[in-house]
Amino acid sequence: MAGILHRTLRLRTALSALSSTATARPSHVDLCSPVLLTSSWQFGACCRKLHAGADGPKQSPAAAPERLPFSRVTEEDLNFFRKILQARTITDPDLLESSNVDWLKSVRGSSEVLLRPQTTEEVSQILSYCNNRNLAVNTQGGNTGLVGGSVPVYDEIILSTALMNNILSFDSISGILTCQAGCVLENLSLYLEERDYIMPLDLGAKGSCHIGGNVATNAGGLRLLRYGSLHGTVLGVEVVLADGRVLDCLATLRKDNTGYDLKQLFIGSEGTLGVITAVSVLCPRKPKSVNVVFLGCETFEQLLKTFQLCRGMLGEILSAYEFLDSECMRLLNTHLKLPNPISDCPFYVVIETSGSDPTHDGEKLHNFLEEAMTSSLVTDGTVATEDSKIKALWSMRERVTEALTHDGFTYKYDISLPVERIYQLVTDMREHLGDRAKSVVGYGHVGDGNLHLNITSPAKDPALLAAIEPFVYEWTAGCQGSISAEHGLGLKKRNYIYYSKPSQAVTLMGNIKAMLDPKGILNPYKTLPDNLK
Amino acid sequence: MAGILHRTLRLRTALSALSSTATARPSHVDLCSPVLLTSSWQFGACCRKLHAGADGPKQSPAAAPERLPFSRVTEEDLNFFRKILQARTITDPDLLESSNVDWLKSVRGSSEVLLRPQTTEEVSQILSYCNNRNLAVNTQGGNTGLVGGSVPVYDEIILSTALMNNILSFDSISGILTCQAGCVLENLSLYLEERDYIMPLDLGAKGSCHIGGNVATNAGGLRLLRYGSLHGTVLGVEVVLADGRVLDCLATLRKDNTGYDLKQLFIGSEGTLGVITAVSVLCPRKPKSVNVVFLGCETFEQLLKTFQLCRGMLGEILSAYEFLDSECMRLLNTHLKLPNPISDCPFYVVIETSGSDPTHDGEKLHNFLEEAMTSSLVTDGTVATEDSKIKALWSMRERVTEALTHDGFTYKYDISLPVERIYQLVTDMREHLGDRAKSVVGYGHVGDGNLHLNITSPAKDPALLAAIEPFVYEWTAGCQGSISAEHGLGLKKRNYIYYSKPSQAVTLMGNIKAMLDPKGILNPYKTLPDNLK
Repeated sequence: MAGILHRTLRLRTALSALSSTATARPSHVDLCSPVLLTSSWQFGACCRKLHAGADGPKQSPAAAPERLPFSRVTEEDLNFFRKILQARTITDPDLLESSNVDWLKSVRGSSEVLLRPQTTEEVSQILSYCNNRNLAVNTQGGNTGLVGGSVPVYDEIILSTALMNNILSFDSISGILTCQAGCVLENLSLYLEERDYIMPLDLGAKGSCHIGGNVATNAGGLRLLRYGSLHGTVLGVEVVLADGRVLDCLATLRKDNTGYDLKQLFIGSEGTLGVITAVSVLCPRKPKSVNVVFLGCETFEQLLKTFQLCRGMLGEILSAYEFLDSECMRLLNTHLKLPNPISDCPFYVVIETSGSDPTHDGEKLHNFLEEAMTSSLVTDGTVATEDSKIKALWSMRERVTEALTHDGFTYKYDISLPVERIYQLVTDMREHLGDRAKSVVGYGHVGDGNLHLNITSPAKDPALLAAIEPFVYEWTAGCQGSISAEHGLGLKKRNYIYYSKPSQAVTLMGNIKAMLDPKGILNPYKTLPDNLK
Repeated sequence: MAGILHRTLRLRTALSALSSTATARPSHVDLCSPVLLTSSWQFGACCRKLHAGADGPKQSPAAAPERLPFSRVTEEDLNFFRKILQARTITDPDLLESSNVDWLKSVRGSSEVLLRPQTTEEVSQILSYCNNRNLAVNTQGGNTGLVGGSVPVYDEIILSTALMNNILSFDSISGILTCQAGCVLENLSLYLEERDYIMPLDLGAKGSCHIGGNVATNAGGLRLLRYGSLHGTVLGVEVVLADGRVLDCLATLRKDNTGYDLKQLFIGSEGTLGVITAVSVLCPRKPKSVNVVFLGCETFEQLLKTFQLCRGMLGEILSAYEFLDSECMRLLNTHLKLPNPISDCPFYVVIETSGSDPTHDGEKLHNFLEEAMTSSLVTDGTVATEDSKIKALWSMRERVTEALTHDGFTYKYDISLPVERIYQLVTDMREHLGDRAKSVVGYGHVGDGNLHLNITSPAKDPALLAAIEPFVYEWTAGCQGSISAEHGLGLKKRNYIYYSKPSQAVTLMGNIKAMLDPKGILNPYKTLPDNLK
C-alpha cells in the first residue's frame, strides 16, 4: 500500500516527528486555558449594554437568567445524602472546584455538594428526595461539553456519573454492549477492540467523556458519517426520572416496535428530562483495515469536489471526511508545535477508510488518490496505515480545539449547513469582523455538513461578541441551518433556539419538559429558552 | 463473477423459470385471501370464551374495545369537508370498501367517509375541524399494515395520504430527499435510482406502501441490517397535530442538536400522535455492484455460523441476511408455483451484497462461498448478479407473506429475539401445537434478530388461537424479546404491550398521547392498551 502511494504522493518524513508529539487529548483538568474567569458566573455577572433598548440595558441571551426559587441545600439534606452515599457525598470546596467549572473555563457554578452514586437505585433515591425538597440537580458526566451544559449555573447539586462505570454485558454475536452511564468512551473503545468490535462514535474528548453524557447530548463526532447518529445506534437506555421513578427502556434488541420509542426523548435532551443511568449500544465490527490520508486543496470548491469523488470511489469503506483550514494549521503549529505533515495549503482534508480487506481497501484508495491528483483536485498529501501514524494524522484534526484554547478567549460556533455553503460562513465572518478578531478559523465534518467556526480574541471582548452575534445566527437561519449541529444548546445557546426551530416546536418541547419534570429540577437554565411559558 | 461461482456452487437452470414468475407484490386489493370476514368487525363481533374466568366470558385481548363516545359524521360535517376538498370527499360505499378492510382481509371498519387531501393545509383544516367536533380520524397510507392499524375500527373518518404524492426536493450532493407522505416507496426508489441513489429501506409491500406510513410505523424491512432504522435515516418530518397545528420539523440537515428531537416521537407512533404530511430522508448512494446468493443449510446452527462467517468476510458490503425454512418453501411451491432454485434443505438463506467495486465484491463473495462450502456450513446454493435473477431470488423471500394468505387463516407473529434463539420459538411452537395447526413456518431477518412466525389453519380457529396465545408472548417475554419487532401494535397487538414494555413506560406513553391528542381522536383503539388510564 505504502509503495503504491509513494508513486502518487509525497510521503513526508515529517510524519515520524509528528507521531512523537501526538498524544491523546488529556483529561480536562490538565488543559488550563489562559482564559480568566470572572467571579461567580462569567456571563451572568456582566450586564453588557448590547441590544439595549428603550427599557434600559439588556442581558446577552447567553447570560444566566435569575436563580429560580429552588430550595437551598441544608445540613439535613447533606445528612440524607451521606446516609445513602457515605463518603461519596463531597462538600470540600477544593474537590468541587473542577466540577463547578467547564472544560473551556468559560462558565462557573457555585455548587456546594457533589454526589457520586454507584447504582441506579442510589440515583433514584437522590432524585426522589431532591424532587420532594425542590432541590435542583445538575447531572455531570466527563464535563467536556462546550455550551455550558455540564456544570451548575448556581448552587445546583452536582450528580456525577463517574463511579457508575461498569460494563454490564457484551454479546459478541450481536455486538450489543450494555453499560452504566459513567463509562469513559475511550475505555469502552479499548474493551471492544479486544473483542473485535468498535464503538459507533468517536470524538476528541474520548479520554474524558462518559457514554451517558454522549447519549444525553446526542454526541456526533468523527464516525457519524459511517455509522450514523446515536438515535440509530443506541438500542436502549435506563433513565431515572425527576421524581425518582426508574424508566427501564434498556432493551438489547435491534428492532422493537412495541409502542412509542421513549428512549429517543432522552437522547439529546442534555440531562433536562431524566438522568441516564445505563445504555445499550449496537457496535460495529472492528475493521480489519484502516487507512488515513491527509490532503491539501487549493480551494474549498476543490475540497467539495474531492468529497464527491471519494464518496463515489471509496464508497462503503469511507469512514470520515474532515477538514481544517490554514488558520487551524497555524494554531496547531504555533500553540502545540505540531508540524504540517504536507506543504502549506489553504485547506486540509483528513480522510479515513475502514474496511474488511486490506488489499481491496488499498486499491480503492490508490485509485481515488490517483484520480484526485490527476484531476488536480488535491495538491499534496500523505497517507498512513500504521497505528501511530494514523493517530498522528488524526491529531491534526482532533487537537484543533485544544490549540484554540491557547490562542485566547474563544467564541465557538457549531453550525450545520447544506454542505456546499459551510465555508462561505467562515469567509463572510472574516470579512465582517475585519481586524477585530485575533483568529477566525473553520474546521469540521464536511461529510455531515457540520462546520466548527471559532473566533478568538486576546481576552473576552463584548464588542467583538456583538459583531459576531446575532450575525452568525441570522446567517445560519438564512440557509435553514442549525445553530448547534452537535454541541447542543446548554446554557450558552438556549435562547438562540428560535433561529433553528419554529415556536410550535419549542412550545411542544416545553410541554414535554413540564410533563417529565414538573418542578424543573433537572439541569435548570439549560437547553430550553428563558421565555418558555 | 458467475464463472467463479460455477466452480463452487451448482447454478440451477431453474433460475430462468423463476424469473418469469417472479413479480412485484400486487397492490393489496388484488390479493384476495380465502379468509372470510364476519360481519361488521371480525374480532370484536365474536366474544370467544377463551380466558373465561369466574366473571364470565372475556374478550380476546386482540378484540376491539367498545366504541368510544366520538361524534358521528353528519351531513353538515360532510358539507364542510366538501367545501375544502370538493370531489375528494368520498362517501360511495363501493369506493370506501377497500379502505375499510386491511390487506390481510382480517379486520374491517365501517367508515362512511374517506377524505383525500392534497396539501398540509387541507390536513390541518380537517383535523382542526374534527378535533372541535370530536370526530375520530384514521390516517391511512398504502393500507399494507399487518396488525390492523391502518383501517378504521368503527366509523372513524379515513384520512388518506394517497394524493399527497409529490417529491418536494432532492439534493444530489447530500442525497437528502424531501417528499409528501403519500409517495409510494417503490416510486421513490425508482426516482432515486435514476439519480444514482437508493432509499434506505425496502420491503415486500413497496409497490403499495407510502413513505408516510413507513415512517409512522417505523418500518424495518430488508435493508435495515445495512442502513439502520428510520430513527437514524429520517432527518425531518412535518406533522399536523390533533388540533390542526402544523409542526414543522422538516429539517434537511444531517445533524441538528437544537432542543429535543421531536420528530422521533412520531416515528413509529402509528398515526396516534399526529398525521405525518411530509418527510425528509437521508438516502445512500446506489451501489455499483449488487449480488444475491441463495443458500441451503442443514441446521439453523449452521445458518447462524454462516451468518457470523459472512459478517466477517463480506464486512461492509453485506446488505441483507434473510432466511426461510422448508415449510415456507413448500408454500411458495404449492400456492405460487415458485420452484426451489436449489436442492431441498431444511433452511434457506438470502444474502445480498452491495458495494462500489464489482471485482472486489465478487472476490469477497467468492472467498466467503468457498469457505462456507469447504467447511460444510452450506449444502447447496446459487448466485445472481443480473437484475432479473436477483429479483427472482429475492421473491423467494419477499413472497412468503403472499403464499401464506393462500394457505388459510394466518396467525402472524413478528418477534425480536437474541439471534441465537430465533428459530427455537418455531420448533417449540410446532411441538406445542402438534397437528392442531395446518402450517407453522418461520422466516425473517436473521441479521436483525427478527423472526416472522406464521401459523395457518383452514379457517379461523379460536381453539388454535388459544393454544398459540399467550404461549408465544410468554415465550418471547422469557427471552426479553419484543412481541412486535417491526409490524407495530396496531389494533391486534395493543393489549400485549406489557409483554415487552414495563408499566412505567406504558404509563409515560399514555401521558404523551394525552399531551398531544387530549381528545384521543387520532387512530383510536390502536397501539396503546385499553386499560391505560
